[in-house]
Amino acid sequence: MIKIGILTCSDKGSNGERVDTSGVAIKEIVKEIGGEVIKYEIVPDDKKNISEKLTKWSDKLKLDLIFTTGGTGLSKRDITPEATEEVIDRKVPGFSEIMRLEGFKNTKHSILSRGVSGLRKKTLIINLPGSEKAVRENLKIILPSIPHAIEIIRGKTEHK
Amino acid sequence: MIKIGILTCSDKGSNGERVDTSGVAIKEIVKEIGGEVIKYEIVPDDKKNISEKLTKWSDKLKLDLIFTTGGTGLSKRDITPEATEEVIDRKVPGFSEIMRLEGFKNTKHSILSRGVSGLRKKTLIINLPGSEKAVRENLKIILPSIPHAIEIIRGKTEHK
Amino acid sequence: MIKIGILTCSDKGSNGERVDTSGVAIKEIVKEIGGEVIKYEIVPDDKKNISEKLTKWSDKLKLDLIFTTGGTGLSKRDITPEATEEVIDRKVPGFSEIMRLEGFKNTKHSILSRGVSGLRKKTLIINLPGSEKAVRENLKIILPSIPHAIEIIRGKTEHK
Repeated sequence: MIKIGILTCSDKGSNGERVDTSGVAIKEIVKEIGGEVIKYEIVPDDKKNISEKLTKWSDKLKLDLIFTTGGTGLSKRDITPEATEEVIDRKVPGFSEIMRLEGFKNTKHSILSRGVSGLRKKTLIINLPGSEKAVRENLKIILPSIPHAIEIIRGKTEHK
Repeated sequence: MIKIGILTCSDKGSNGERVDTSGVAIKEIVKEIGGEVIKYEIVPDDKKNISEKLTKWSDKLKLDLIFTTGGTGLSKRDITPEATEEVIDRKVPGFSEIMRLEGFKNTKHSILSRGVSGLRKKTLIINLPGSEKAVRENLKIILPSIPHAIEIIRGKTEHK
Repeated sequence: MIKIGILTCSDKGSNGERVDTSGVAIKEIVKEIGGEVIKYEIVPDDKKNISEKLTKWSDKLKLDLIFTTGGTGLSKRDITPEATEEVIDRKVPGFSEIMRLEGFKNTKHSILSRGVSGLRKKTLIINLPGSEKAVRENLKIILPSIPHAIEIIRGKTEHK
């Protein structure tokens, strides 16, 4: 079982102006890899707020994996990658690179996502874009790499 | 209309030893996306000099987009990426990644480009390589993503 | 002739628990580009230790190119990328990006490698993964770009 947190970063989502279909999509899709969503919250695009949630979910709740959705674009308020970089110990750039570059085959906009990925101790944190469509496409790309990643982080296997 | 600056970073270009065909190529190509070149200068490969130009063009002239060309390679004096990183607030790595990796299909040398991309407030800054051929190839790859990027930065639309 | 160093980063390799077939593979493969291995050592996954070796091999031995192997994964002790980032002056991200993304076509695990690449003065440092299979696959991808890179670093040619 993979313990998962979903943090939706969206001003409009947090004040009720928009329904968070992306968070819901993640919740459903992670079942495919035995993911169980322990935490799911919507926060505004506030750097400190996002960093604090990621820190707490990693250090206190000891989740295996946190997906953020939203706040990775070029709008003034988009700050999820910076909030994430502030709390990770070690970067894992491959997840973000492959989402942008594989995604580019379908949509030219995929390279505008500024998402980062990394480890905070034993918690893997991955920024997903905000739109449900992009979330679905991106998870399809990276999901097959996740279970092996979690095994290695837990120390139960070595990298093949 | 997209307000564009072109900053050619080249010791030889700035002292007249080399004709800057790359800058001229950018000027011509950006017309395809409604780009109007407001500023075009050639500076030597000097970090402080490059950073100051980028800062001034962003903060005072409020350009939408600055393309640098040159100074992204492995030579001793190549320093454009470091000068750019010093002035951007938020990284937009996808532009640089896609230029290196799509470019790799044509030429193995494309991965030697150390270019970065990012935002300084509302100005998007993208490092292009120095050679005219590489500039043309790279712009072909990223140009279709630019107009939507500028719209989002201006706040006139949301990321799709 | 390209002067090469191989630094195997592995707790098990350094205490004799594992035979370093990856280091041996690099030694053999670099002959294809006129590489001569001047230094080859196995060190534990210790950040300070790795950084010191890289610094000494660059500054004192003035090697053209150092390949590290191992320590790029998600295990608790994997620290080679962080040790490398500490000693490089200028990043050369393309080598690491292309290894992850071209590698992804063969194996989904390639994106878990956290390897970085960069220059310390005139020495190019490239992190390779730990497994022999991955080392062979990755070198196949980047080797054709190496000789031109070394020429530029030495200042004997300009970037084409």
